[in-house]
This record gives sequence, C-alpha cells and structure tokens, in this order.
Amino acid sequence: MARSKRGVRFPARRNSNELSGSEGRRSSFSDVSEDGSSRAKDALKATLEPVEEKPPTPEDQKAEYEKKKANFWTRTIWTLIMIAGFFIALFMGHIYIIAIVTAVQIISFKEVIAIANVPSRARSLKSTKSLNWYWLATTMYFLYGESVIYYFKHIVLVDKVLLPLAHHHRFISFILYVFGFVFFVASLQAGHYKFQFTNFAWTHMALYLIVVQAHFVMNNIFEGMIWFFLPAALVITNDIWAYICGIAFGRTQLIKLSPKKTVEGFVGAWIMTVIFGMLLCNLMMRSKFFICPVNDLGANIFTGLECDPNPVFLPRTYEIPQFFFLPSYPTTTITFAPLQLHALVLASFASLIAPFGGFFASGLKRSFKIKDFGDSIPGHGGMTDRMDCQFIMGFFAYMYYHTFIAVYKASVGSVLETAITRLGYDEQVELVKSMCRYLGNQGVVPEELAACIEFATRA
Amino acid sequence: MARSKRGVRFPARRNSNELSGSEGRRSSFSDVSEDGSSRAKDALKATLEPVEEKPPTPEDQKAEYEKKKANFWTRTIWTLIMIAGFFIALFMGHIYIIAIVTAVQIISFKEVIAIANVPSRARSLKSTKSLNWYWLATTMYFLYGESVIYYFKHIVLVDKVLLPLAHHHRFISFILYVFGFVFFVASLQAGHYKFQFTNFAWTHMALYLIVVQAHFVMNNIFEGMIWFFLPAALVITNDIWAYICGIAFGRTQLIKLSPKKTVEGFVGAWIMTVIFGMLLCNLMMRSKFFICPVNDLGANIFTGLECDPNPVFLPRTYEIPQFFFLPSYPTTTITFAPLQLHALVLASFASLIAPFGGFFASGLKRSFKIKDFGDSIPGHGGMTDRMDCQFIMGFFAYMYYHTFIAVYKASVGSVLETAITRLGYDEQVELVKSMCRYLGNQGVVPEELAACIEFATRA
Repeated sequence: MARSKRGVRFPARRNSNELSGSEGRRSSFSDVSEDGSSRAKDALKATLEPVEEKPPTPEDQKAEYEKKKANFWTRTIWTLIMIAGFFIALFMGHIYIIAIVTAVQIISFKEVIAIANVPSRARSLKSTKSLNWYWLATTMYFLYGESVIYYFKHIVLVDKVLLPLAHHHRFISFILYVFGFVFFVASLQAGHYKFQFTNFAWTHMALYLIVVQAHFVMNNIFEGMIWFFLPAALVITNDIWAYICGIAFGRTQLIKLSPKKTVEGFVGAWIMTVIFGMLLCNLMMRSKFFICPVNDLGANIFTGLECDPNPVFLPRTYEIPQFFFLPSYPTTTITFAPLQLHALVLASFASLIAPFGGFFASGLKRSFKIKDFGDSIPGHGGMTDRMDCQFIMGFFAYMYYHTFIAVYKASVGSVLETAITRLGYDEQVELVKSMCRYLGNQGVVPEELAACIEFATRA
Repeated sequence: MARSKRGVRFPARRNSNELSGSEGRRSSFSDVSEDGSSRAKDALKATLEPVEEKPPTPEDQKAEYEKKKANFWTRTIWTLIMIAGFFIALFMGHIYIIAIVTAVQIISFKEVIAIANVPSRARSLKSTKSLNWYWLATTMYFLYGESVIYYFKHIVLVDKVLLPLAHHHRFISFILYVFGFVFFVASLQAGHYKFQFTNFAWTHMALYLIVVQAHFVMNNIFEGMIWFFLPAALVITNDIWAYICGIAFGRTQLIKLSPKKTVEGFVGAWIMTVIFGMLLCNLMMRSKFFICPVNDLGANIFTGLECDPNPVFLPRTYEIPQFFFLPSYPTTTITFAPLQLHALVLASFASLIAPFGGFFASGLKRSFKIKDFGDSIPGHGGMTDRMDCQFIMGFFAYMYYHTFIAVYKASVGSVLETAITRLGYDEQVELVKSMCRYLGNQGVVPEELAACIEFATRA
C-alpha cells in the first residue's frame, strides 16, 4: 500500500540528511490511516503520475539538477510578475486590493475543497458540490456585510433599502445558514453518509481557515493600507529570504514536514525580515495614502487620503535608561515612531509563527499525498501554497492592531449624552460613583474629585 | 466489508416499511467510504458486539417486544428524573443552570471527540488527547470571558486585576489559540498525518457545534431565565409528544436517517408544542424571576428578581380586522402579550427545524456505525443523544431574541466601558464633573455625592 504511493515526488527529499536510506524514506510515507476509499486512491494515482523508484544514476542527477534550475527560474519570474501586479493594484486603490483578496480567497477555497472532493468524481452527489458553494456564499454574505455595516455606518444607516438589511443582518445570515443545514441533512443518502459528513466538516474547516481569516485581512485594508501591506510584505520577504538563505547556507533540516526548510534559512530570514520591516515602515509612514483609514473608496496613490494620523506614526523621543552594570554616561535620547517597535513584533511573528501556517499546509498535503494544492501559479503550485502563511498573519495583524494600536475615540459630550438620555437617575448616580472608584484605583486623585473618590473607595 | 457491519442493531429498522427485504437493508449499510483504518474497524466491532442476522422467530419477536417495553420504562423513569433535577436547579437560581449547561457541554464534547479517537487507542499519540482538551479550555476561556465582560462590565471594569484581562481578552485568547496551533503542527508525526488532521478538523467541528452553540444558550440565561427555559422546554415537549404521537398513530416513516420518526409523530408534536408553548408563556410571564435579566446572581425563585419588564411581556390590545369576504361585524378586540406570538415562532422552530439537529446527529452516528454517543443516561444513550436538538434551538433563540425582542438600553456598565476605554484621563475627570453638575442642576442631591456636586456647581 505504501509502495504504490512512494513515487510521489518531494523534490528536496533527496537532500535531506535525516532520511538517507530507502528504508527511512519508505517509513515516512507509510501512513497507517491513509487507506481511504480505494476509488479516491485510484483517482489520486492517476493525477499524480507515480514514478518508479530506482537508485539515481548520474544522468538522473543531472536531469534533476536541470529541472531544479528551470523551476528556480520559473518561480523567480512568476514571483516578480506577482509582485508587480500586486504593486499596481496597491497604488490603484483599496477597492482593487479588496478585489484581489476576494479572488484569492475564492480560488483557495476551491482548491482546498477539491482535495476532499476527489472521491465524488466517481459518485453522482451533485448536492454536495452546490452545497459547498452555498456555504461559501452565505459565509461571505455574512462577513462582507459585517464589514460594510461597521465601516460604512454613515451610509448604510441612512439608506432606506440597506437599513432593514443592516438591522437584521445577523438574523438573515443565520437563517440562510439554517437553510443550508436543513438542506444538507435532507440530502443525506444512505451509502454516502461518511463521505457527506467528511465533506461537511472539511468545508467548514476551509471556511474557517480561509474565508474567516481573509475577512480579517479585509478589515485590515479598511483600517489603512499599511495594516494590510506591512504584514503581507513581511511574509513574502520572509519567504524569499528563507529561500535565498536556505540555498546559500542551508545545512540542517528544520522540520520533517517541510524537508526544503532549513534552520539557517529560518534564522537568516528572521534577521532580514526585521531589517526589512523597519525600513519599509520608515518609507510607508511618509504617505497618508498608506496610514489613513479608508474614508474614500475612490482614493489612489495620486489623489491620496487625509486624516489625523494615529499616534503610532508620530515620532516620539525615548530616553535611553542608565544600566546599573555600566559606568554612568550622559543621558542620551533616541527619537523614532512607535510603529518601528510594532513592526519588530509583526516581523517576528511573520518569521517565527506564520511559517507554521505553511507547515500546517505541508502536513495537509502530505496526508492527502499531493504535492501542491493546484497549479494556478507556474513554479509555485496552487494559490493556497502561496497564501498558507498569509492567512494566519492577517489574523494576527488584525488582533494586534485592535489590541495595541487602534484608538477608539469618544467625546465627553457623546458619553454624557448617552448617560443623561439612556440612564435612569439611580443609574446616573451609580455611574458617578463607579467612575470615582475607578479613578481612585488608578492612583492619581485629582483635587476637585477628592471627596467623591474618598467616599466611593470607602464604601 | 459491508457484511461484517450489518449486525449493528438499529432497533426500529425491523419496523421500517421502506426496507423490508434483506437486500434493501444491506444496501443501506454498504457505505462506500466507510473503509476507514482497519484498526478503527476492529475496535468498533469489539465495542458494538455484532449480532448474526437470522430471520426473526416468534421467540425473537417476543424478546424484542419485552426489551422495547423495558426500554420504554427505563426511558420514562429517567426522563422524569431529569425533569425533576432540572426544575430544582431552575428554581435554585441562574448559577445552578449555568453549571448544568457547562457540565452538559463538556460531557457532549467528550462524547463527540471520543468517536473520532477510536483509532488512537491502538496508537500512542498522547499529544492529540491533551490538545483536544486544550482547545476546549481555550475556547471556553474565550467564550465565558466574552459573556462575563459583556454582562458584568460594572464589576470587571473597575477591578484592578480583571481590567487588564478584560482589555486584552480577545488578544490573550488568540495567543492561547496560536500556541495550540503551533503545538499541533510541531506534534505532527510521520505516519499519523491523516489521523491527526482528521482529529484537528473533528475537534474544531465539535467546538463549533457544541461549545459555541452552548455559549449562546449561556447568554440566553443571562438575558432572563425564560429565554433559556422556553426554548429548552419546547424541544423537550416536542420530543416527548413526537414519541407519544408516534407510538399512538405512527404509520409513515418521516426520514430514512431516523427510522423511529414518523410523519404522524412530527405533525402531532408540532400542534401539541405550539399549544404547550402558549400555556407555558402565560404561566412564566407572571414571575419576574423568569422574565428579568440576571442583575443578581444570588437570586432564586423565592428571593425573585426586579426589573422593568421588556414590552413583549405587557398585554396589548389588538383589533381584529374586518375581512372583506365576511359580513361586517362589530369591532372586536383581543388582548394578549406579544410574547404569545413570539412563542408561536419559537415552538414552530422547535418542531420543524430543530429536529434536523437530531437527524444530523443520527446521520453522524450511522456514518460511524454506532447506536448512541455514549451511555451516560440509562434508556436515553449519551448526553449528546438528548441534547442534539437543544444546541441549534438555543442558537436560534439567541438570534431571535437579539433581533426581534431585545431592547437596547444603555447600562451603567456600557457607559462606564466607553468612558474608561475611549476617553483620556482628563476627559474622564471632566465627565465626572459634568455629571455632578448635571445631577446638581436636577435638584435632587444624593447624600453620597454632595461634595462632588457642591464642588462642580460652585466652579
């Protein structure tokens, strides 16, 4: 059973130090649980063109080398094409980037669900396929709706047609989902249960790993182009540098799952990514097109955007502390924008954690005995192969931005209005007492509220 | 292959009209994709005690009848025990009900992940098991935290220890999740990929179907006992009536998945559930313990709760319209609380849609060739067997309540949250002074704020 699969090519396997003998290689492929449906296996075998295993001759090695070289160039050229296309979209405006992210998520979703659908080619379960797209449409309706309602309140809430849709958005999405659920249960067919449930679970995983995470990337775009571009660029940079450093210095295998990855590449790429992140920030901070939230969807790099920049973009002066173990030196100060420090954190996540998204994808491909998720990008494989680390990075950037960077402003007037109009008298008194207690707990007691605070903390 | 599985007993199968011959029965079991790991099958076979298939003799039929009768009584007695225990907890207060829901969700989660874990008994992947519990803990930390922060703002946000936890709650939860993710990828072992990824997907499905939905049930409890009790009681009533009507009039099979279910039971139960829902509402509306949100966690049926009731609980007078096709009649009015109409919708969902949650669970059990999820409740099977329809019902009740019933008044907690998180220090002081000035201007000066008010109005 394992034998028939051994032929699937993992190019770098031969260079691995860990598994030198044929026996070692075989054991790493003999996955006990892989005895899935035999039809699935036949289908896979047909797609993957199994190669007979023979001891490599010098000709083989030369051919292998030539192939690797050719692959390197295809990959490099397509990397450059993608980067160019991406930059053009970037400068054309947020709408174009949103369109690209949407396309990427749909292609990735298609690739990922196709993996679990292999057995269905031999079956006639059309309902499963339609249902997969229905789940995607429902999820996208829900998530895009959430974003639009959140970022375009001022438009949505005054529009007669959109208002009821917005008010009931979550309920409508829920009902759409329940329809799908009922349809799924009604379409269950004896003899296909396991396939149908596996498909259900698989589609939900794809929705969660791809579509939900892409939603966070989308929201990053709305918060300002930099919060989308910086994380994405860090992952790409890290990937390129890991490739370069790996080829230049790579000796030690990092993780069995991805035999191409080396420790040298991993560490080298981290250092380069941090440096690159710092430089990129320095550059992007100068343009309001990058740092302002989207308040005008028609904006591009030439028209620009206007806003009061978030404080992280404003240079601040830090005093270098005196270290007790060093002889005292004159006080020195250093001036930079806090964003530089945040870029350090983001670059480290992109280098140290995001690659695990890639390892996860590698493991998934291994468990299905496939080399790539698809072949949409020459030299790179499927869209998902290129995007595996982007999704978790975008999610992290979203969480990090909203926790440590976003400034949620309210005015004294608006809070006062809410308190006066929407709270009863007793609640208003309660509010003042709680505020006094809070201010007291913060340690700084303003003279004019001393009596109030004293009373509140005493009670 | 299919043959070795045919012995698994589905008691009502013999009564099914659809599948009378042995051939029909066989075809419904020959699930093409069920050839999972052979170890898994061995383990399952051992657990399920396969029975040899023979044409039923009169003795067999009598034994079968006796067994069904015994099962009926065990089931009825345990139904009554559960109902009694449930009512005691109900009257003791919200904390006890929350504890029960928490226990139910943990037991259900354990049962569901145990199904996919069968193969691991033969393997030594301890990491998988620990990881499953880690996901559960992380998810519960996140969801309970969300509820506590939302409903107990006024306590959490003034507490020195809890405040930073609350401020960074989502980020902390995300980091906990990322840790689990990295650990999962690092623990991937060659030869176990497929099992580990299946487990990953399966655990996430269980988290989503059980833990996330239980979170909504939890929030229903906080909104008022009725929003938890009414949906739960409707599902239980529907279940009991479907059983009674099915035994009394059941002739036509409803769905192949659940051969015990009949069309007569389904329709009869719907009618009875709607009637029951109306009566139950009428009863519960009289008690503020049921209709008030939890503003005091120590409350029980004897101490009661106090609040301004939501308008849906207040009787309203409706005018019966004149229908053009009827002779005109004197204007008639009818008075009832809007809740009665909402109960109609909830009862219909509980009767028509929620059972699909049960069919879903039945299909899942079929695809794994098991009869019950466990044996925690005598006569009923596992906890999940009893709760399968409750989760989706709780989710619906949550969505319905928040869309059509909830009245969003500002609470002290929410205003406090805005003031603390979105105002600067100076603005907070300014807000307290303004509030004091406002309260002073209103003429009624509460003793405890006298000093603050005097200062504010003097300045």
